[in-house]
Amino acid sequence: MHRRDLLKSAVAAGVGVVSGGGRPATAGGVQNRQPSAGGGDYETFDLGDLPLLSGEVLRSAMLAYKTHGVLNAARDNVIVYPTWYAGRHTSNETSIGEDLALDPRRYFIVVPDQFGNGLSSSPSTSPSPQDRMRFPLVHPYDNVRAQHRLLTERYGIERIELVVGFSMSGQQAFHWGALYPDMVERIAPICGSARTAVHNVVFLEGVKAALTADCAWAGGEYASPPRAGLRAFSRVYAGWYASQAFFREGLHDAGDGVEGFLTRAERSFGRFDANDLLAMLATWQAADISAHPRFGGDLAVALGAIRARAFVMPSRTDLYFPPEDNEIEVPQMPNAELRVIPSIRGHLAGGGGSPEDRRWISDQLAELLAQ
Amino acid sequence: MHRRDLLKSAVAAGVGVVSGGGRPATAGGVQNRQPSAGGGDYETFDLGDLPLLSGEVLRSAMLAYKTHGVLNAARDNVIVYPTWYAGRHTSNETSIGEDLALDPRRYFIVVPDQFGNGLSSSPSTSPSPQDRMRFPLVHPYDNVRAQHRLLTERYGIERIELVVGFSMSGQQAFHWGALYPDMVERIAPICGSARTAVHNVVFLEGVKAALTADCAWAGGEYASPPRAGLRAFSRVYAGWYASQAFFREGLHDAGDGVEGFLTRAERSFGRFDANDLLAMLATWQAADISAHPRFGGDLAVALGAIRARAFVMPSRTDLYFPPEDNEIEVPQMPNAELRVIPSIRGHLAGGGGSPEDRRWISDQLAELLAQ
Repeated sequence: MHRRDLLKSAVAAGVGVVSGGGRPATAGGVQNRQPSAGGGDYETFDLGDLPLLSGEVLRSAMLAYKTHGVLNAARDNVIVYPTWYAGRHTSNETSIGEDLALDPRRYFIVVPDQFGNGLSSSPSTSPSPQDRMRFPLVHPYDNVRAQHRLLTERYGIERIELVVGFSMSGQQAFHWGALYPDMVERIAPICGSARTAVHNVVFLEGVKAALTADCAWAGGEYASPPRAGLRAFSRVYAGWYASQAFFREGLHDAGDGVEGFLTRAERSFGRFDANDLLAMLATWQAADISAHPRFGGDLAVALGAIRARAFVMPSRTDLYFPPEDNEIEVPQMPNAELRVIPSIRGHLAGGGGSPEDRRWISDQLAELLAQ
Repeated sequence: MHRRDLLKSAVAAGVGVVSGGGRPATAGGVQNRQPSAGGGDYETFDLGDLPLLSGEVLRSAMLAYKTHGVLNAARDNVIVYPTWYAGRHTSNETSIGEDLALDPRRYFIVVPDQFGNGLSSSPSTSPSPQDRMRFPLVHPYDNVRAQHRLLTERYGIERIELVVGFSMSGQQAFHWGALYPDMVERIAPICGSARTAVHNVVFLEGVKAALTADCAWAGGEYASPPRAGLRAFSRVYAGWYASQAFFREGLHDAGDGVEGFLTRAERSFGRFDANDLLAMLATWQAADISAHPRFGGDLAVALGAIRARAFVMPSRTDLYFPPEDNEIEVPQMPNAELRVIPSIRGHLAGGGGSPEDRRWISDQLAELLAQ
């Protein structure tokens, strides 16, 4: 693949662009299959009124998801691979394939869309009074509990081979491990942390301020998208998700220079509703496996509760989930190993967009699944 | 000094806050002294119509500056220490003192305000038709040439012991070295590069987009400051100028958490005019010592032209002037040495705000000045 093509796909996958085309759905004919809502390529699971960690209730909550492969008779070939920030289930498909560790011939791979991404319950889809900025704060634990209900109630699943995730979905992998230690055999958080670091919170305050600086945002009550705000949001974000070396080596340049790179970021994020972007951002900022009554805010206790075999995979050059945060977490986990992605693609390395990083990650996942 | 106080001063100096109080002016009674314009603590130098590198002419250009110490009879005890982004001459005073290498008892230290900072010619001070966003692009070479005129025409200076600078003024030190190799004995660029790296350009595109996303910015024709834009600009910037480790170690927290840190950033940048911030930003993005007819865009040739003895001092944890950029430059300079500031304060390390970093830098400068 030419470097420019490689770049385009790297960036596209890394930021979770909804790939309009993509490979055909590989979901097998598992039991309890429901027709897709709206005729899309995904299914939905009605959660009813969902109590949230915050104490609020998300009314008529709905989980969108897509499956790949077939659930076996023992119901024990399950991999959960949630979506990340500004990602949808289609974004994950780059890392699923017969040539990869996440092989749908062998595993039943469930890709749940996280709340706020415009497919599962979101500010843009929820009716009043939980629409727009009135959508309640969703904690990663709320996503995980909803996914747990999907697996147990719809599919009767009791054991999970692996929860794997990138970025915010890597954070969900940590939360899965902490909340359901008897159910989760392995976790593989890629470019994610058990608790969002303070610097990461500050980075997100920046993109949030950029989006909401646009008067057209109007406190979330816009009639049409706040374009200047979304543009600013995207351009700020684009400085963070790669690395200094990525740009130094010219990997940003698909022949159209910096402006082309920034325009692609605008296009990616611009497909999302502004309030949805802010809702997912709030979930990200709230991520903290210790934020559960069981752990009482004690991160060491929560990390110690993750009995799953874990490969924790930061990217060497990630600017907002730097390896150091995982280096601190891993020794506090009983059964975890740090494996640093040797990439200059920064955070993007974990999204599966570059064949090189994708292969490296797949090799680790294969090794983990064999243990 | 308590860590909280230390932090306040670190952040204040690091982002070039205009310190309202500060130590009394130490400028001695040098010859050709002019009364301050407007009764401030600084002097001005009328440049007339100044031809710029771009081919445009900055009309009735004016340089503000402050001096510390006394020019000796041989006129050879000169240090030039320009201002940085969102800095004014008062910002530099933290690093000047009798206990430091930049000792006004020994040296005549000239601190020129860079164009665009609201004291030297700026969008906020220039009359029509060069006001606001019509202010022409100023290249670092234009700042350096104006400063050269100040030194030679007003003070008859022919040799400079040292050009030292932090951030954008570190970039000016590189430009001084390349343009006036017969005049400059030493340079000490701190957290700066000879050419603004692509990633650095992208970071700046982000803060620019954040500021201009505010409808109140109105293409620069605001009647009152675009507050939401300045707020967004500051909050984005605040994610960049420290480091992940800075936040991990809690150095941001002066008792008021992340929000306090962000509020201080807003206060710092909010003292500047929005168009001024954008003008200085354009200068920063344009920084490139090879962008002179003498070098024809060849960076290696331009770096090779810097014969001055140089200590190049990036901060180990700087996110937009990372050490790697200097590591690439230094071997191409005939007489340069890389000295990495061992700090977790990121870019802020170079601003002299923390006593520890200030002492470390001062020690290097003393060593350089002794050579």
